[in-house]
Amino acid sequence: MSCGNESKTTVTPAESAPVISAPKNIIMVVGDGMGPTYTTAYRYFKDDPTTPKVENTVFDRHLVGMSSTYPDTHHSYVTDSAASATALSTANKTYNGAIGVDMDKNPLETVLERAKSLGKKTGIVVTSQINHATPASYLAHNESRQNYNEIADSYIDDGIKADVYLGGGWKYFIRDDRNLVNEFKDNGFTYVDSYQALETTTTDKPLFGLFDKKGLPWALDDTNMHRLSSMAKAATKHLENQKGYFLLIEASQIDWGGHANDIAAAMGEMDDLAKTLEYLETYVKSHPDTLVVVTADHSTGGVTLGAHGVYEWKPEVLRTMLQSPASIAKALETNDITKTKTNELFNFELTEDELSTLITVKSDTLKNIQITAITDEAKSKKISLEKALYTAVKKVIDGRTNTGWTSSGHTAADVPVFALGSNKDMFNGYQDNTDIAKKIFTLLDK
Amino acid sequence: MSCGNESKTTVTPAESAPVISAPKNIIMVVGDGMGPTYTTAYRYFKDDPTTPKVENTVFDRHLVGMSSTYPDTHHSYVTDSAASATALSTANKTYNGAIGVDMDKNPLETVLERAKSLGKKTGIVVTSQINHATPASYLAHNESRQNYNEIADSYIDDGIKADVYLGGGWKYFIRDDRNLVNEFKDNGFTYVDSYQALETTTTDKPLFGLFDKKGLPWALDDTNMHRLSSMAKAATKHLENQKGYFLLIEASQIDWGGHANDIAAAMGEMDDLAKTLEYLETYVKSHPDTLVVVTADHSTGGVTLGAHGVYEWKPEVLRTMLQSPASIAKALETNDITKTKTNELFNFELTEDELSTLITVKSDTLKNIQITAITDEAKSKKISLEKALYTAVKKVIDGRTNTGWTSSGHTAADVPVFALGSNKDMFNGYQDNTDIAKKIFTLLDK
Repeated sequence: MSCGNESKTTVTPAESAPVISAPKNIIMVVGDGMGPTYTTAYRYFKDDPTTPKVENTVFDRHLVGMSSTYPDTHHSYVTDSAASATALSTANKTYNGAIGVDMDKNPLETVLERAKSLGKKTGIVVTSQINHATPASYLAHNESRQNYNEIADSYIDDGIKADVYLGGGWKYFIRDDRNLVNEFKDNGFTYVDSYQALETTTTDKPLFGLFDKKGLPWALDDTNMHRLSSMAKAATKHLENQKGYFLLIEASQIDWGGHANDIAAAMGEMDDLAKTLEYLETYVKSHPDTLVVVTADHSTGGVTLGAHGVYEWKPEVLRTMLQSPASIAKALETNDITKTKTNELFNFELTEDELSTLITVKSDTLKNIQITAITDEAKSKKISLEKALYTAVKKVIDGRTNTGWTSSGHTAADVPVFALGSNKDMFNGYQDNTDIAKKIFTLLDK
Repeated sequence: MSCGNESKTTVTPAESAPVISAPKNIIMVVGDGMGPTYTTAYRYFKDDPTTPKVENTVFDRHLVGMSSTYPDTHHSYVTDSAASATALSTANKTYNGAIGVDMDKNPLETVLERAKSLGKKTGIVVTSQINHATPASYLAHNESRQNYNEIADSYIDDGIKADVYLGGGWKYFIRDDRNLVNEFKDNGFTYVDSYQALETTTTDKPLFGLFDKKGLPWALDDTNMHRLSSMAKAATKHLENQKGYFLLIEASQIDWGGHANDIAAAMGEMDDLAKTLEYLETYVKSHPDTLVVVTADHSTGGVTLGAHGVYEWKPEVLRTMLQSPASIAKALETNDITKTKTNELFNFELTEDELSTLITVKSDTLKNIQITAITDEAKSKKISLEKALYTAVKKVIDGRTNTGWTSSGHTAADVPVFALGSNKDMFNGYQDNTDIAKKIFTLLDK
């Protein structure tokens, strides 16, 4: 850290070096898949077109640097969420798919585990299932992110490591062979399964909340469009204690919007994350002994603002969406595709071309389904029609916004780093994702 | 600027506030089109595959923040180089195409002009023609970047504003109607037209150097692959004086690589810029009263590292290129496409598929050319064959590296900001491109 040009300062180094105290609370926030294009897109998505100025966002207020994300695999540089989350949680590079283990599948201590061993409370808040790659990399050690049940089991069997778990995942925690929710309850946890119940929990007991089967619904479709923000509020209240806490918050589904090449869904998730950071902004003001670090594990989808040689990105239609493109596609599957219906679903007027494309996609797909109907199940017929319509709906939105995509997977571009509160300057400039964990370990050990 | 957590410091604010002196010299470096994907790509392009570590680059050492780049045009957010360079040079938003003028086409004072009026020396060093959008936005005022001759004329007619001009542009400066090179010579300038001559110039006279008709050759094809670095060295030597200087350096052709969707050419340009920054790193060490600010005006091409759902970016073949893809295409046009010839040109062994694709593209294009040959000129036939082969060569390289592209134009993603030397901390965090100019004006006026 440098404090400006020191050539004319009259202060001696001994005097000027401030004594840095470690933060009491550390909140690590991961925007899964949130490469720099997403935070830029969010600024323009939120821009008020009635003012001449482009308004700044909470991301703009707290940018401090950038981070590289490459895994330890054959110098091919593109990470998955497991390897990158393991880098962020343990300060070690590993292979794609690894959950809290090194290249030889040996377990690595995570910052959450270190915080717990130092007597701090710990928690995780995510919009995916709570045993998905990112939260699992802070809580578990497994050779593969795909071992969802094993990872869920380990949350009890390896000793309970957190005081607050909030996200989705009934499918993995309430199973025929084992009911982990009951086991958490037996261990003294309050269990909630609705956002309403979350609101009224008391902070005297640890908290286990699952709000959907796997991941939560898209923010755009959820009963609470800012559910990450609500869960984060609840978690900080539950975790406050004299020794401080470590909390992981993940906006898990920005990545899912990227994988689906769905800019509308991604902006909905970004808005939920932004609301969460705005809450943390006020939280840090009243709790200045808290450090908040925000970054992404990688970028997803190869998204670009502007495409096809046209110098425009036009988020207008994204600002008025009432539901996700996936939800619009579902409605188009069961309804006649008319001007009235599509205007109602999209909340903007489709052109004749856009409308007729949707109609053609539906009728063509139905024809293809009928040809193979003899061997197909009704369910898979429904899925393929929904999928075709989902693709068509996204095409309309990409056309309107001039959004480009190159992949259904991840890309290697460095991601932005944001920090606020105590010791935030430690995260200034370029750093590797393992450096972020190293700095957190250092602060925990102070 | 903050100096860490101040809660436990024993230093009073009056003691701790360092007295900041203005930098004597300010060097503004623009990587045209250099969005965050390019600086990330450069790290992996330069990575030594024989070491387990990924090596840091000069960009990594000096990252301080990011910048937004949107123009003042209908909230569509994607800028061109003229509007963005005008933002960087004047602190004002304007329309795409504008050179140093506002939305109403009124001239705006530039930081270069301010520096000159304060008695500093000034200079520009670019790899495009010296009257191209970026340098022109620091030196001229014109309603359109396309008015190349007008802009060139203004370099004399509006009063000579710089002491050093280095780049390309004979076509615009040595014309039938006017010889501006002679006019510069008449005004006391040393004129050079070769890199060799540049090496031996003395610093007693102002310097005007043009090294090609329009832009310089691709770095990969130039007789001096680090010509920007050489020109920058010459410029700093020429500009040194007691009152200091303002120098604009532009790596103009990163953008051209992006427009052409040519990752190999873009990496060649990045390497020239990196060498330039490495020179400036040592320069700042010996001249600590110098501020260097580096940024991009926008990103180009919608480039992504990884594409098509594959989690890999593999720059191996880029590291051994002996010439640009455009140059390979030219050679393929005039030579039989054989395994031996392509291995020699690409400097790696083509697969049977890659080879046969190139052969097919050539024969198919030649057939098409023959069909329309009656009306076409020989020249345009040659161009269309070269173009088809250039596209095919780039496809081989994109396939090998797994590079994605979404556009032949620009995109809106925020760009990285790097700073070194005196007052570099002023550029920490998020800022708009106009803020960069505001900060430079502030430092000039100190």
